[in-house]
Amino acid sequence: MSPKTNTTEESKNPSELRQDIITGDWVVIATGRAKRPDEFVASRIINNSHEDPLEDPEASGQEPDVLIYRQADGDWSLRVFPNKFPAFVRGKTPKNLNEGPYVAQTGTGYHELVVTRSAYQSIAEMEVWRVAELLDAYQERYLGLMNKKSVNYIQVFHNHGKEAGASLAHPHSQLMAIPVVPSEVVRDLEGAKQYHQAHKLNVFDTILEYEGSSGKRVVFENEHFVVFCPFASRSAFEMWIVGKRDNPYFERITDEEKYACGEALHMALKSLFNGLQDPAYNFFIHTAPCDGQEYSHYRWHIEIVPRTTIWAGFELSTGIEVSTLAPEVAAPFLRSYLT
Amino acid sequence: MSPKTNTTEESKNPSELRQDIITGDWVVIATGRAKRPDEFVASRIINNSHEDPLEDPEASGQEPDVLIYRQADGDWSLRVFPNKFPAFVRGKTPKNLNEGPYVAQTGTGYHELVVTRSAYQSIAEMEVWRVAELLDAYQERYLGLMNKKSVNYIQVFHNHGKEAGASLAHPHSQLMAIPVVPSEVVRDLEGAKQYHQAHKLNVFDTILEYEGSSGKRVVFENEHFVVFCPFASRSAFEMWIVGKRDNPYFERITDEEKYACGEALHMALKSLFNGLQDPAYNFFIHTAPCDGQEYSHYRWHIEIVPRTTIWAGFELSTGIEVSTLAPEVAAPFLRSYLT
Repeated sequence: MSPKTNTTEESKNPSELRQDIITGDWVVIATGRAKRPDEFVASRIINNSHEDPLEDPEASGQEPDVLIYRQADGDWSLRVFPNKFPAFVRGKTPKNLNEGPYVAQTGTGYHELVVTRSAYQSIAEMEVWRVAELLDAYQERYLGLMNKKSVNYIQVFHNHGKEAGASLAHPHSQLMAIPVVPSEVVRDLEGAKQYHQAHKLNVFDTILEYEGSSGKRVVFENEHFVVFCPFASRSAFEMWIVGKRDNPYFERITDEEKYACGEALHMALKSLFNGLQDPAYNFFIHTAPCDGQEYSHYRWHIEIVPRTTIWAGFELSTGIEVSTLAPEVAAPFLRSYLT
Repeated sequence: MSPKTNTTEESKNPSELRQDIITGDWVVIATGRAKRPDEFVASRIINNSHEDPLEDPEASGQEPDVLIYRQADGDWSLRVFPNKFPAFVRGKTPKNLNEGPYVAQTGTGYHELVVTRSAYQSIAEMEVWRVAELLDAYQERYLGLMNKKSVNYIQVFHNHGKEAGASLAHPHSQLMAIPVVPSEVVRDLEGAKQYHQAHKLNVFDTILEYEGSSGKRVVFENEHFVVFCPFASRSAFEMWIVGKRDNPYFERITDEEKYACGEALHMALKSLFNGLQDPAYNFFIHTAPCDGQEYSHYRWHIEIVPRTTIWAGFELSTGIEVSTLAPEVAAPFLRSYLT
């Protein structure tokens, strides 16, 4: 990509990473997706458009695919292409945008959409091989982006339902490859490291061993993965999918594990779909950064956060989430919807 | 309160503080407000009840007021009483509820509602003296709770609108007096301390000096307070209200400051109300803990978070919020609605 193209792209879709001067947290000001201030009034009105730009991405002006999987009949079964309204914009190294006492840089990175074939079939309703294919696409794009200059973390996530921030009904996941390691990930990594120092154990082994022997919070288990409601659930029906193999790096998932993880993810989302009549949810992968550091005490995993309640002032101000349902009550309820 | 009463209350309204084994974050499992698992389906249906339990709290079975302010005609103008469905339940010292490798304790504390007289008058529409009275009530209850055994932090917050988690239309604020110092507050305090160590300056002075000289993100200012959109805004139209006096402790606000802060809060919320047609928002006070430690480099302040967008998978997984509106665009828009 020529410098000239970069400049044009960046000025068309400016995106800025700004650091909170007190906490050190980052935020993105992505004015490429911008609205005028008064348009935030209208945003409360539900979009009733019946268009599906993901059914035929090229016709709706998306950039060409960076990855496409085809079925035997030649039709596509999965495709990945750059987000038309990226939060992180392709470019060379991030540019310093400091202002006065504040630290900021261009929001340089990659923002891609991973789209599965059917507009009406969510992961809860897919065959397991399709979910395994989805995980395979995550891995392939992860491997394609992790060595790019200035990419230090890749966030894979999926929004399902309006209350979870999905702006399109057609099932799609997203990858953002970004220059900073997010604070939530740093806290996870540091916590796992401290646990290892204190107990000479991987904290994920401790969790799997205790949950396995107690059984009361386990929703599903196969040869390679366990699905459970975590002891300190942040929201009702929260689930984690943790692998039994000691592996901090999602991108090192094997083919056999992809199928097993696909089954675990499908079963977890199916229990939500059946038990709560297709609620909104987010799921995301937490994995070790791709910044060249050592993260041996961590383990990549998936967190599923159903959006059954609204986080209000107490949650926003303290970071302490209030849930009205204990995970040991949620788990048997979810289990009962798997058979 | 007799131990017998405590026991009854705790068994009726059990509340549990659980700590995430990896990050150390706390969550509350408040099963006293519980629903059965299948009731989370119905929670997506809007509550169309026209009842207002805050209009006549005693008649609707609330506990007696702990504070009441009256008007000249004898009618009440503001009242404070215990929340009927508390997230933190009164009791003696928190009881250990550890399980296997996990840390937990009873959710012991206080949870009160602060209700202003009119069901239809939000803070944006109130006269300034009423907002000052509201701040006075926050302070009085703060002083009443801060020395209680096992109270280490008091969170004052206000939810406005359904999208911000307000379950009742009648304007009300909440106080939660809790045994732990929340992680979001700890990160604020540590950031302010580190900034002072690095720069020999209070970070709030740095912010006010820069924002005052630039002016582009300032929405309102009076003798004692500045309202501005922060450089690293986490959501569109976010505003902070910071005092000019070096004071970490909200409870030490003076009468003159209460009036000035009431005006600042009223003007900030009025700019939102007028500019965005009464959007949902949360506001909360961040102040130094009441745990007896030293917090001289901090400053209490108010943060206002309009709920104009939905935080989705990227925000939940990374802690990096994406905003599509720069604070220097939001501020002049909000200012224009003040005159």
